[in-house]
Amino acid sequence: MSDTPLNWGKWGDDDERGTLNYITEEKTLNAARLVKSGKVYPLAIPLEADGPIWPTRHKNWHVATFRNLDEGSGGAEDILMMHTHGSTHVDALCHIFSDGKMYNGHSAKDSINATGARRNAISNIGGIVTRGVLIDVAAHHGVDVIDADHIVTPEEIEAIAEAQGVTIESGDALLFRTGWIKVWDQDKVKFDAKQPGPSLAAAQWAGQKEVAIMAADNSAVEAFPLPEGMVIHHEFLRNQGGYLMELLNLEALASDKVYEFQFVVAPLNIKKGLGSPITPLAIC
Amino acid sequence: MSDTPLNWGKWGDDDERGTLNYITEEKTLNAARLVKSGKVYPLAIPLEADGPIWPTRHKNWHVATFRNLDEGSGGAEDILMMHTHGSTHVDALCHIFSDGKMYNGHSAKDSINATGARRNAISNIGGIVTRGVLIDVAAHHGVDVIDADHIVTPEEIEAIAEAQGVTIESGDALLFRTGWIKVWDQDKVKFDAKQPGPSLAAAQWAGQKEVAIMAADNSAVEAFPLPEGMVIHHEFLRNQGGYLMELLNLEALASDKVYEFQFVVAPLNIKKGLGSPITPLAIC
Amino acid sequence: MSDTPLNWGKWGDDDERGTLNYITEEKTLNAARLVKSGKVYPLAIPLEADGPIWPTRHKNWHVATFRNLDEGSGGAEDILMMHTHGSTHVDALCHIFSDGKMYNGHSAKDSINATGARRNAISNIGGIVTRGVLIDVAAHHGVDVIDADHIVTPEEIEAIAEAQGVTIESGDALLFRTGWIKVWDQDKVKFDAKQPGPSLAAAQWAGQKEVAIMAADNSAVEAFPLPEGMVIHHEFLRNQGGYLMELLNLEALASDKVYEFQFVVAPLNIKKGLGSPITPLAIC
Amino acid sequence: MSDTPLNWGKWGDDDERGTLNYITEEKTLNAARLVKSGKVYPLAIPLEADGPIWPTRHKNWHVATFRNLDEGSGGAEDILMMHTHGSTHVDALCHIFSDGKMYNGHSAKDSINATGARRNAISNIGGIVTRGVLIDVAAHHGVDVIDADHIVTPEEIEAIAEAQGVTIESGDALLFRTGWIKVWDQDKVKFDAKQPGPSLAAAQWAGQKEVAIMAADNSAVEAFPLPEGMVIHHEFLRNQGGYLMELLNLEALASDKVYEFQFVVAPLNIKKGLGSPITPLAIC
Repeated sequence: MSDTPLNWGKWGDDDERGTLNYITEEKTLNAARLVKSGKVYPLAIPLEADGPIWPTRHKNWHVATFRNLDEGSGGAEDILMMHTHGSTHVDALCHIFSDGKMYNGHSAKDSINATGARRNAISNIGGIVTRGVLIDVAAHHGVDVIDADHIVTPEEIEAIAEAQGVTIESGDALLFRTGWIKVWDQDKVKFDAKQPGPSLAAAQWAGQKEVAIMAADNSAVEAFPLPEGMVIHHEFLRNQGGYLMELLNLEALASDKVYEFQFVVAPLNIKKGLGSPITPLAIC
Repeated sequence: MSDTPLNWGKWGDDDERGTLNYITEEKTLNAARLVKSGKVYPLAIPLEADGPIWPTRHKNWHVATFRNLDEGSGGAEDILMMHTHGSTHVDALCHIFSDGKMYNGHSAKDSINATGARRNAISNIGGIVTRGVLIDVAAHHGVDVIDADHIVTPEEIEAIAEAQGVTIESGDALLFRTGWIKVWDQDKVKFDAKQPGPSLAAAQWAGQKEVAIMAADNSAVEAFPLPEGMVIHHEFLRNQGGYLMELLNLEALASDKVYEFQFVVAPLNIKKGLGSPITPLAIC
Repeated sequence: MSDTPLNWGKWGDDDERGTLNYITEEKTLNAARLVKSGKVYPLAIPLEADGPIWPTRHKNWHVATFRNLDEGSGGAEDILMMHTHGSTHVDALCHIFSDGKMYNGHSAKDSINATGARRNAISNIGGIVTRGVLIDVAAHHGVDVIDADHIVTPEEIEAIAEAQGVTIESGDALLFRTGWIKVWDQDKVKFDAKQPGPSLAAAQWAGQKEVAIMAADNSAVEAFPLPEGMVIHHEFLRNQGGYLMELLNLEALASDKVYEFQFVVAPLNIKKGLGSPITPLAIC
Repeated sequence: MSDTPLNWGKWGDDDERGTLNYITEEKTLNAARLVKSGKVYPLAIPLEADGPIWPTRHKNWHVATFRNLDEGSGGAEDILMMHTHGSTHVDALCHIFSDGKMYNGHSAKDSINATGARRNAISNIGGIVTRGVLIDVAAHHGVDVIDADHIVTPEEIEAIAEAQGVTIESGDALLFRTGWIKVWDQDKVKFDAKQPGPSLAAAQWAGQKEVAIMAADNSAVEAFPLPEGMVIHHEFLRNQGGYLMELLNLEALASDKVYEFQFVVAPLNIKKGLGSPITPLAIC
């Protein structure tokens, strides 16, 4: 595991935005030009108690309240209790650290307490509008769902991109489709036991390519079991200041063979937040 | 108050999406073409316990948990407990009803219980990508914050649009800036006591113009006190199937005089949800 | 199912306390005199996410926060999110109703909304100090756990009481031990599928005996499946104004053959509450 | 501030119950004999959003859900979200520590994480049944509410006890009435700004007297502002393993001049919990 953080200091010692610095106004402008038909793909799974969730977390809790259902002037609303990482979500850069240091060397101990994170918090994101690229691993191998022990290498990513006719550029969001999200409905124990995902080398390669975002239709972008720990989180999020998005549903994009698109993510503006549930959008 | 629901049945008796039907793929495509510089404006206020909230609701509750802050491999995450209507948010079409009927005549009693709404739920939205138009009421009157008893009429909206050089089109999102959001930091009691907003006539006019979304930088889009009840909610949301977005921060847009833009809203995909916190984005 | 509510009006049309009226100061005084050794038995199961809970409810959620674990002046505390009926608990008299009427004829519709119950709320209880009587059904049949389809009849209760050398008196709390709580650790699916409990006739008999409280070591006091609905809730709670306590652990009491004791229950003083988690105490 | 923990090791190096060891079966038996009339005083304030709470904590959140209010078979229940220290409550012995050590030298760092406390948790309590003694400071000074800057000394406690005709014994619960709880309804800002309470010397004296519990009708038993920190928490809870109970309502006891009684506290059996809301009972 690399312990030379690639991007620390690259955008100044105070930087808390990491690879979002790659997404310049020019990058955002070019992303808008990828819209050719006006079709919008929402990429979130249903946010519900029974959805997939990292096993140590509590299930999402949703309660509705209402008045005057059948006469007069009535209303209804709801309450949500959830881990911000409890359904489709983006990790803030304060989510993972090691040896006491978060992305860019910010001290975890000085930054984080029960009220949240003073540094590298989710509220630094604002809104993300960049080019998204689907890397359809499952389709490339001619299957609906890739095997649980499949580890995606840099060479494989490049081969898939080439086959799909896309190139990876600075500031891109890479969306890895393994098909694994479909396992949840079939076998929840299998879903949580083992998952396919990119290799550590893929995260390092992403750093060289200046990829801004790695997203996947699995629980943690990571392949697991994790013999060496959360290598993607360590290398991409902590060392590079890259953004991880998890538990996406990429089936409709894959079915329509949409490989590049305007990619929009608008996390909740949680003060001192460590992540946010999201509905990423692909617009093509 | 009009009791002839303008759009009921217009898109079929089963329709649950209302004015989103105005946002065709062509409309979305044209909205993308409004991006000229690549600048992104996130329009959410901070989601925190101390932010503005409808007085009968509980404050947002946010707790962080963490491990290994100073050695080894560490991590941190957070839990959120909130009314979906507790910060910047969008109302689902099931939020308001009268005489037992929601938008399109769906029965409130048959649709809503403590687990949520079977009909007109937030999950029908998916993602919204359309043309956004800022209606800067405060600037038009040469003030930072418009008076609490100012009611915005259709004539005034048209005058502002003309002065700003924009026209209102089918499927647009209208964002009303009153400046009222700034009162919160100065005087919380004043903020909640009385607020400016559009008139019932403005909601009716919006229906004629096929406006899809009415948003504002106040608590409920509505002007209040509400001598005749929530007239905008009744007319625009219930009768027209229109979407209301509340507690936006429009200051940066106004400061830069950005009057039309690609407007993107991606609500959380809450199963049977009655609203969602959001970070609306204006991209220009 | 009896529809002649036994105790409605018995303590006045405004009464909201039901069978607690049987627990006079004299009854409480006599209960204190049952203490002979000073031994205290707490009767609550562990309140945790993984404990038994009615399947439609969300699991208990518990989060700890802390500061300065290793130096200086430190502190830790916790947050609890739970159904009040989510572990060992007592039902308020507003919990169950039929034909629009709660205990004593109070209107459910006029009393209950999302903020709680104006009538028959948990806060009417205060504290309960009375005579408790263990009815050890399992031991009477020479088993650790009684069969799932065992229905306890009035005759059986009287036989058990006689064998145990106790008589049932006005204002008593009857604690039914089926042993079922032990099934949870062995087989959670079995635990929820079917449970033993008292019959409707037993609830009617309890009314004649002026029993104040029916408690059990199962999920709902009720035997289920419930071909005729929640007959005990309907007859004992709604019709008689009796108190139901559920998910108790009676193993230590049974092991020590403690059949009568000072029984103390102190529900949380939740304003407009519909139930409360409790730790009932048996003191002998 | 004393740094020689009085009771560490006294009941063995593994002990996690502290002063509850003073409450022997004989003590509990004698406490039952204090019941002379059968009158029960519940000592909890209403558990509600608008009640007094330590200012950094979130308000209690309570939501009711219901079905079939007006026909058929109906039911209602509720959900509670709260700090366990958010209304009338007892502190677990893991609540406060310093220099990394909790009561009896247990390591805070090794014991506490986001899931709770492995050592000194609330679930060690079970149920408390002992002699309670009211120390009515306000009445002793002939006032309804004692001054905010009044610090109760050991000499004053002894003088009050003598005037009330009671002596302090090993294992007793001392309930200090300052009257301060009444300030909440009159002036919430005043309530939180400054409070009367016992001195550090009083906590040391309580240690010598083998007092098991110190309770009060203020926010933290402590007088504050706290120039030397939470001295009572440090000395009584951490050093002596004593139990603190806060935000009690002692008005009815004082009004009836009930100075000794059977005192019963049954905390929720929260696994790894750091405190519990309670309804303490005084039975006389």
